[in-house]
Amino acid sequence: MILNRFMIESHIRKALAEDIGFSDITTDSICSDSDRMKVKLTSRVDGVLCGVDVFSAVFKVLDPSTKVEILMKDGDRLKKGDVIATVEGSARAVLIGERTALNYVQRMSGIATETRKYADLIKDYKAEITDTRKTTPCFRLFEKYAVSVGGARLHRFNLSDCVMLKDNHIALVGSLTAAVNKVREKLSHTHKIEVECDTLEQVKEAVSAKVDIIMLDNMTIDEIKEGVKIIDGKAIVEVSGNVSISTVEDIAKCGVDVISSSAIVAKANPLDLGLDA
Amino acid sequence: MILNRFMIESHIRKALAEDIGFSDITTDSICSDSDRMKVKLTSRVDGVLCGVDVFSAVFKVLDPSTKVEILMKDGDRLKKGDVIATVEGSARAVLIGERTALNYVQRMSGIATETRKYADLIKDYKAEITDTRKTTPCFRLFEKYAVSVGGARLHRFNLSDCVMLKDNHIALVGSLTAAVNKVREKLSHTHKIEVECDTLEQVKEAVSAKVDIIMLDNMTIDEIKEGVKIIDGKAIVEVSGNVSISTVEDIAKCGVDVISSSAIVAKANPLDLGLDA
Amino acid sequence: MILNRFMIESHIRKALAEDIGFSDITTDSICSDSDRMKVKLTSRVDGVLCGVDVFSAVFKVLDPSTKVEILMKDGDRLKKGDVIATVEGSARAVLIGERTALNYVQRMSGIATETRKYADLIKDYKAEITDTRKTTPCFRLFEKYAVSVGGARLHRFNLSDCVMLKDNHIALVGSLTAAVNKVREKLSHTHKIEVECDTLEQVKEAVSAKVDIIMLDNMTIDEIKEGVKIIDGKAIVEVSGNVSISTVEDIAKCGVDVISSSAIVAKANPLDLGLDA
Amino acid sequence: MILNRFMIESHIRKALAEDIGFSDITTDSICSDSDRMKVKLTSRVDGVLCGVDVFSAVFKVLDPSTKVEILMKDGDRLKKGDVIATVEGSARAVLIGERTALNYVQRMSGIATETRKYADLIKDYKAEITDTRKTTPCFRLFEKYAVSVGGARLHRFNLSDCVMLKDNHIALVGSLTAAVNKVREKLSHTHKIEVECDTLEQVKEAVSAKVDIIMLDNMTIDEIKEGVKIIDGKAIVEVSGNVSISTVEDIAKCGVDVISSSAIVAKANPLDLGLDA
Amino acid sequence: MILNRFMIESHIRKALAEDIGFSDITTDSICSDSDRMKVKLTSRVDGVLCGVDVFSAVFKVLDPSTKVEILMKDGDRLKKGDVIATVEGSARAVLIGERTALNYVQRMSGIATETRKYADLIKDYKAEITDTRKTTPCFRLFEKYAVSVGGARLHRFNLSDCVMLKDNHIALVGSLTAAVNKVREKLSHTHKIEVECDTLEQVKEAVSAKVDIIMLDNMTIDEIKEGVKIIDGKAIVEVSGNVSISTVEDIAKCGVDVISSSAIVAKANPLDLGLDA
Amino acid sequence: MILNRFMIESHIRKALAEDIGFSDITTDSICSDSDRMKVKLTSRVDGVLCGVDVFSAVFKVLDPSTKVEILMKDGDRLKKGDVIATVEGSARAVLIGERTALNYVQRMSGIATETRKYADLIKDYKAEITDTRKTTPCFRLFEKYAVSVGGARLHRFNLSDCVMLKDNHIALVGSLTAAVNKVREKLSHTHKIEVECDTLEQVKEAVSAKVDIIMLDNMTIDEIKEGVKIIDGKAIVEVSGNVSISTVEDIAKCGVDVISSSAIVAKANPLDLGLDA
Repeated sequence: MILNRFMIESHIRKALAEDIGFSDITTDSICSDSDRMKVKLTSRVDGVLCGVDVFSAVFKVLDPSTKVEILMKDGDRLKKGDVIATVEGSARAVLIGERTALNYVQRMSGIATETRKYADLIKDYKAEITDTRKTTPCFRLFEKYAVSVGGARLHRFNLSDCVMLKDNHIALVGSLTAAVNKVREKLSHTHKIEVECDTLEQVKEAVSAKVDIIMLDNMTIDEIKEGVKIIDGKAIVEVSGNVSISTVEDIAKCGVDVISSSAIVAKANPLDLGLDA
Repeated sequence: MILNRFMIESHIRKALAEDIGFSDITTDSICSDSDRMKVKLTSRVDGVLCGVDVFSAVFKVLDPSTKVEILMKDGDRLKKGDVIATVEGSARAVLIGERTALNYVQRMSGIATETRKYADLIKDYKAEITDTRKTTPCFRLFEKYAVSVGGARLHRFNLSDCVMLKDNHIALVGSLTAAVNKVREKLSHTHKIEVECDTLEQVKEAVSAKVDIIMLDNMTIDEIKEGVKIIDGKAIVEVSGNVSISTVEDIAKCGVDVISSSAIVAKANPLDLGLDA
Repeated sequence: MILNRFMIESHIRKALAEDIGFSDITTDSICSDSDRMKVKLTSRVDGVLCGVDVFSAVFKVLDPSTKVEILMKDGDRLKKGDVIATVEGSARAVLIGERTALNYVQRMSGIATETRKYADLIKDYKAEITDTRKTTPCFRLFEKYAVSVGGARLHRFNLSDCVMLKDNHIALVGSLTAAVNKVREKLSHTHKIEVECDTLEQVKEAVSAKVDIIMLDNMTIDEIKEGVKIIDGKAIVEVSGNVSISTVEDIAKCGVDVISSSAIVAKANPLDLGLDA
Repeated sequence: MILNRFMIESHIRKALAEDIGFSDITTDSICSDSDRMKVKLTSRVDGVLCGVDVFSAVFKVLDPSTKVEILMKDGDRLKKGDVIATVEGSARAVLIGERTALNYVQRMSGIATETRKYADLIKDYKAEITDTRKTTPCFRLFEKYAVSVGGARLHRFNLSDCVMLKDNHIALVGSLTAAVNKVREKLSHTHKIEVECDTLEQVKEAVSAKVDIIMLDNMTIDEIKEGVKIIDGKAIVEVSGNVSISTVEDIAKCGVDVISSSAIVAKANPLDLGLDA
Repeated sequence: MILNRFMIESHIRKALAEDIGFSDITTDSICSDSDRMKVKLTSRVDGVLCGVDVFSAVFKVLDPSTKVEILMKDGDRLKKGDVIATVEGSARAVLIGERTALNYVQRMSGIATETRKYADLIKDYKAEITDTRKTTPCFRLFEKYAVSVGGARLHRFNLSDCVMLKDNHIALVGSLTAAVNKVREKLSHTHKIEVECDTLEQVKEAVSAKVDIIMLDNMTIDEIKEGVKIIDGKAIVEVSGNVSISTVEDIAKCGVDVISSSAIVAKANPLDLGLDA
Repeated sequence: MILNRFMIESHIRKALAEDIGFSDITTDSICSDSDRMKVKLTSRVDGVLCGVDVFSAVFKVLDPSTKVEILMKDGDRLKKGDVIATVEGSARAVLIGERTALNYVQRMSGIATETRKYADLIKDYKAEITDTRKTTPCFRLFEKYAVSVGGARLHRFNLSDCVMLKDNHIALVGSLTAAVNKVREKLSHTHKIEVECDTLEQVKEAVSAKVDIIMLDNMTIDEIKEGVKIIDGKAIVEVSGNVSISTVEDIAKCGVDVISSSAIVAKANPLDLGLDA
């Protein structure tokens, strides 16, 4: 997944407006027009880098003449002390942009770092880790990107790109099979159907309904194993619910295809990066 | 702090567009125009509620005829199992809005819950806990509000409402005193000056410069105590750096006025709330 | 597919601003505040109705007190002379909104009408007609909706919801198989892969690569039949290129699954609807 | 008429967002950062070129370093096989922008081509062809421009720049003369008054009222001739209704000044242009 | 001229965001949810009222349940002490909206009041007063409206609705006549041509060129009289430059049609209106 | 205070759209693509320059290749005849941008000029002049900046950056002291409290309540002197109400700290600057 320049610039403009308000009353007074400054972005901990282009774009939006030298790239493993990039330009742009630039790259690197842990734990299994739609409102683009940089696959972007039938949908129509049939009446041939199953009975029904993806929701390891057997390659097997660092490998061992987890975004803390002279 | 309706509606419209894309291909097929649904928002854990009006507004933006009954209010302590609100309306609006509504209220309640822990730990001291500008780009309004609901005071909203002199500012001008003087040449009488001090020498200089707020940055408990003595009521004493659940009370005991922490936002996990039929 | 209220209102506001400029200098002078007017939307030809809710929303955006009675619904077959809706309200809102409201409903009904012709011609075959991404910039939402109302399935909404490998993608990587493999390294399990094939050799390669959808691009009827045989149910068969009213049934007879056509949008003329007192 | 750069860039950004969604999942996987591509825009049919600067701007918005060489200019007559422009740059930008760029230039060239047919048919007469306000919502700027490139004059841009009194306006006030008088009470001296007349009686009344433009609406050729006689140079004569390729010359022969037609926009099909390596 | 509701609401939302920032830190603390307040809008001086609907809309945007009773209408002559409207609703909405609501209505009433003075001075002459394009960026809609409420006609809204040839245009083409001819090659029949003349020689040339409006720019009273004679009803005569309260009647006496003045907007001071409990 | 480039560009785009509408029908016809023009910005009166970067940015937004040479800088005292800047570029960009560019720089220079008069009058006193929140909706950024260029300090930017307790707030809570206490329960340590006092009794209460700033509202010179005595350095003394060129020095003589005046913005007329070939 790539972040398109015009999209991130538009997001950055709003973020800078949020952080600047009318103007930076400290920097406005302190800096003269000709003051220049050079700072470097350094990692204070180990982790995975993500968002260095967004970091750079913040300063360019403020002042296109700012020079940002990017020394490491998204996805690189960071060691404490690594110098990631240098920023050189008008002191005003550097000082005004600093916090916003860090807010992006720290959050994105935090998510990539957390995701990497999960991905590494299951790297010897067929299973892939994916994210969910449990994201921060109006920040999903960056979270999805960070998740992919961290080594996860992506789940659907939003409600437009894959059908997902949940309890409430099924309850409205009366049965899983009826719901799948109803969806098929209108479905684009370019889109898949996923069904969330709470019981193994539902899994059997989903297999019969020939859906593309079956999600085993909040099941025990034993149930998951049984689910995999029932599905037997006739659908992609996704597991969701109670996925954590301590459970992810056990789930992978069950032979599932996909493990989706909101934790890789929701529980990721901003990575400690510093911007110093 | 209050969330103004027209501001949150505008944010919600963007968040819904982000999550809907062109349309919800699942719900569009499953629901008829006349299908109605009632769900309730329940807490699955203990915590502090925040964002229930935002949660409600999501459904109203989708369909103004949706009825949301709000049973608990922002700031209330939640017990596992508490019913927070009910939503009744067109099944389409309920199913389309569900995830976005939860994404707001879970994140905001998570921050309020985390903040509450800090606030409770220091409730017997003079010190107040505050947030910082380390927030999620384009989501600060909601994070600031959640922090205030959780029992914290707010630090400055952005770069416009308080002067904060940091290392880099001081380095540019030559000395802390020179920097303060330079700021005073232009400063609005409605704004305060805060100075970030890394050493006790700087603290002394800041006191002499008669600034309003002195931030003791990344100091040991002993240094903080010494700082408080030096300042001796001549400025507001703020402590920042290495603030955590395990250190906050010790810092408060030093007699400081304000403890600012990015952790109450950055390390808060979304609170586990459910929306079920 | 459903048009979400908040999205169409935002589009309508821009369209009205485009058509009003500073103000309607005719209506402003002619109407007093208390003048009221009632008009009815009538079909002057046979066709398929689409966009009546958008039509209604235009007047509501101008004046929420306008009463729009909707007598026929999207998808209904129109006969010349049918009364579709009545609009009653302030003369000012009716006269200012008239042209913009018609511009939506006429274009959308024109597309639904054109699409219906194709859908009817192939209703006895397995094949479904779909649209393409050849749409009017910033108007796709309405065109996609009209296509679905006219009886077509939808092709992908945009570049996010299905992989489509074309000549240029394949050329960059070296071969169709290599391109498919490269995509699979990152692909979400929720997304499908479609490959555009210009030759039957490519079709064979695509079958071996186990892609989800094979598009037979600009092939003759004989080639299409051969393609269907080669694919033999192992992928969804889509035909594109030279699809028209006169060819669509012959293509459907070949046993294909999907016939995609830009003509149902691009060659549709606005349907002749009138708004009269 | 000129398209101002900042306006089209803003429209293009929205169109690209519409077509990209979160990201181009095909191109993102296929292209490496260093892949470059060169394609040329070619005409597959005869026609009139329009929108080549918009086409170019799409790629520049995606990647300002893209090189677009423009070989033919708006208004040029295209022969099948003509090379219009070449695009060279990052493969990613070329592949992501291709469809949106074509959607603009094909629609605009289609309108210019259709308009040119009408303009050519009446080039030996006094009459000019113009467009109407029956345009695609939020796309009028491009349609107006294409119409002017195709050899038409423009009718009013929107409701702000010329008074146009229609049946409903006149009915509200009581008479054509009364309506004109009412408008004159407030009218800017910079704006003209046009009146739509359905009968020759109304034409006489309009002449007496000394309006600037009289539109003969849906009249027969004989009525139009009679209308021209009655008006006798005292107002600009505009004809509207039932204007088509087969009627436009006969109308021009009547000696009218302006023939306005929605068909030059509404019935224009996108011109078949290709973008190939 | 009428202010369309959806346009002013969108302007008001931006103005409120400008004045609120994150939140009103005074009112948020002082008011409880249930506090209600009633205030009345009163004139502290004589003048002409303008913008009372905008004033009202500010409170409705903040809280739709606010009750605004409008006692006087736009264009009414105000006497010191007149009560214009009452606002009753949540104390929070009243206190937050107060300043923004006043900023609109005071500026708009100031302009209407200033304009009224000019209009009254020339009410016995043929001449009408109009505004110019010298307005406040992004506030022209409100200034144009206020000017019309104050008794002026409007000059063109912007660069789209009337041709105005100035020195620089003429210089580029070589002569006034050549410039007019060049414009006529493309001109819409719905638009007029105005020419700015600095000398009586130019006036003669403009008459020969049969333009619609001749502006006598910065001429003496004697020159204006001579200009009127030269034009002799063959074009609308507009005077511009050095128009003030003390010169406007003398200019009107010359028999001109239109006197355009930037002063009615630029030199108008906000009218002193108060909002008190 | 500094104007951030990305903010003013976004404002300029809206202002240009406001002034251009669909296109500049005069310039579009008159200029060929290759016509170039050079104009210079000159002062026709004495004053203070403000907004020259905004002036320049207007032309750059229209055409980035425009060359603007800036000869004088914001804050410089202008003499009639001074050449401020030259603009050289495509004739089209120069002619289209001219009015909008002037609308910014004339208004901003007018405000700086008016402000300078006040600042000069009190330059030998401790008092500083400041603005208020009585600004033009959606234009405050430029007005605040102009005020600071003219030699004033700034009052609060908006409702977020300083508490200001007025009559209505105090009335709601019951007393000034109670209101101050209520605010203190939630107040950020980075924000100050100002109280508006109408009587000397209130001033005494405000002193006791230890607020940061006491505004003496609409008081006589004698009352102000008495107020200063009562306050005696325990708060910043601000005077507001009836501040004019003729009163400002008398007020300053009373020994107050700040004199806030809406007049420096509201009563400033655009400065007469010309843009000539």
